[in-house]
Amino acid sequence: MTDTEAAATIVAADAIAVLGIDVGGSSVKHLLARADASTARPPEPLARGRNATPKSAPVDGLAAIVEAVRGDRRLTRLVLSIPGIVDEARGIVVRSTNIPALDGCALGDRLEAELGIPVDVINDGHAAAVAEASWGAGAGVDDVFVLALGTGIAGAHVVGGRVVPGAHGSAGELGHITIDPSGSVCSCGRRGCLETIIGAPALRAAWAEAGGSGGTESLFAAHTDGHAAAKRVVEHAASALAEAILTLCALVDPGCIVIGGGLAQAPHHLVTLAARFVAERATFHRIPPIVPATLGEWAGANGTVLTALLRQGTLV
Amino acid sequence: MTDTEAAATIVAADAIAVLGIDVGGSSVKHLLARADASTARPPEPLARGRNATPKSAPVDGLAAIVEAVRGDRRLTRLVLSIPGIVDEARGIVVRSTNIPALDGCALGDRLEAELGIPVDVINDGHAAAVAEASWGAGAGVDDVFVLALGTGIAGAHVVGGRVVPGAHGSAGELGHITIDPSGSVCSCGRRGCLETIIGAPALRAAWAEAGGSGGTESLFAAHTDGHAAAKRVVEHAASALAEAILTLCALVDPGCIVIGGGLAQAPHHLVTLAARFVAERATFHRIPPIVPATLGEWAGANGTVLTALLRQGTLV
Repeated sequence: MTDTEAAATIVAADAIAVLGIDVGGSSVKHLLARADASTARPPEPLARGRNATPKSAPVDGLAAIVEAVRGDRRLTRLVLSIPGIVDEARGIVVRSTNIPALDGCALGDRLEAELGIPVDVINDGHAAAVAEASWGAGAGVDDVFVLALGTGIAGAHVVGGRVVPGAHGSAGELGHITIDPSGSVCSCGRRGCLETIIGAPALRAAWAEAGGSGGTESLFAAHTDGHAAAKRVVEHAASALAEAILTLCALVDPGCIVIGGGLAQAPHHLVTLAARFVAERATFHRIPPIVPATLGEWAGANGTVLTALLRQGTLV
Repeated sequence: MTDTEAAATIVAADAIAVLGIDVGGSSVKHLLARADASTARPPEPLARGRNATPKSAPVDGLAAIVEAVRGDRRLTRLVLSIPGIVDEARGIVVRSTNIPALDGCALGDRLEAELGIPVDVINDGHAAAVAEASWGAGAGVDDVFVLALGTGIAGAHVVGGRVVPGAHGSAGELGHITIDPSGSVCSCGRRGCLETIIGAPALRAAWAEAGGSGGTESLFAAHTDGHAAAKRVVEHAASALAEAILTLCALVDPGCIVIGGGLAQAPHHLVTLAARFVAERATFHRIPPIVPATLGEWAGANGTVLTALLRQGTLV
């Protein structure tokens, strides 16, 4: 093979790509990867970037982003992740609190018609979970439960690189198991769910009640400084998380637990503490490694690319 | 084919069998089935029966039962279910409280050496669960959670006819999720597990404390008669079971929940009541049918036969 032929081959492979788009409430992140990239590790992106979320005409806005990113390349598949309830089998956004214009939208079909390529629409938590399980903190383990701590608590059991959906597509809701039967009313309508104790609004409220000011960052800073009231609030939250993990181990018995999301960005506050409580309280349970997520805010975009690589057909 | 040839074929197929043995604490049940039986429904047994459990020399005693049952037939596979902790991959009984002579016994290898056929050893709860899921109350549903209520509470998630083992073989322990954080100490060492409220010893204790006499049968009889204290005890238990089912639906999202075991033999006491509480309390949850088991005390033996049929190689 001459140098010119080798260069031509590289250009050709490089020109055939998959695109993953993580649609967030405020920004849209994209990752473009070679269509022949390995799924064994995160591919070197051909392009990555961020745009403001097109909220008023999201379908046209997303199509415009796709056209701008692909340029002259041939796309074989597009995968989008959406914050909200997604009918993944039919590519429909059932409900998205952050982008109401997408509610009920057959986003997959509409973008397929516009772009002429296969388009999948997946839940953003699922996207981040498969990426963390396969390319992040769970890499190398076949059976990983991924938990995202933020305003809400999202969970997904990932086995063999795919989310275990449950019989109705709603498995993994660790945020809505009861921890304190006499606790506060939850957004789900029940009482004392994990989310009512460890969700960001609950932490802010507990911190304010303990005399603190500011949000969770102020709480965690005070915790780092050894502030006694902050210590009580954080320990109460980590204790609730530990109870949820013990239930998870009893019922699901995962091979690794990865904890990410905004509230786990400084893992020593919650993840390490919860892992210590779990180790202290476990009896018959088989406790797997409990580790912080590693992909940060690009987890979702990585998950869309991974999903695109896994789902695309034979190439070239 | 002449009539003589047809008869000869039937006799030959009939002479090649799989044997399933459910080893209980007091009795051993066996079921012999044609090796070419369909796994789609319970086969008509070639033989079924019951012996006392050989407790002092269990390996020799079980081998003698196998020899007596098979008679002139050629066995292609034997599957035994054991009450206790079983290393199914290696055919070892790790611990069996009811038959201590089996503790640590390489039962699979020893019976294979004795009988000259493949032998599998499985947990008795798993055996009953696959049978109920495939041939009992869960037949026709691909994703079934089977719960057995008795002295202890056993659970198994059966997907596609096989128990989902978890990463360390210990998934499904619904009896040991916390229902009442301030409840009684459990056999597992934690506090307020489902088993501390709804296990048979807990029900007997609650019934005695409420002024009742006799065991759970007396409690359930009083409940049927509309006895107020019995109603309180049974409703408290059904309420705890409902809470555990809500956690199960949030986390695992099964397509059907089958409830069996000694305490579910008269389902109107616990199963129907728990299902009503679940329906009243569910919010976001996707609640599947919650149904009583149908195979009764032969569930385990059916599960060993099903496992033998699924695992045997090509026949004849």
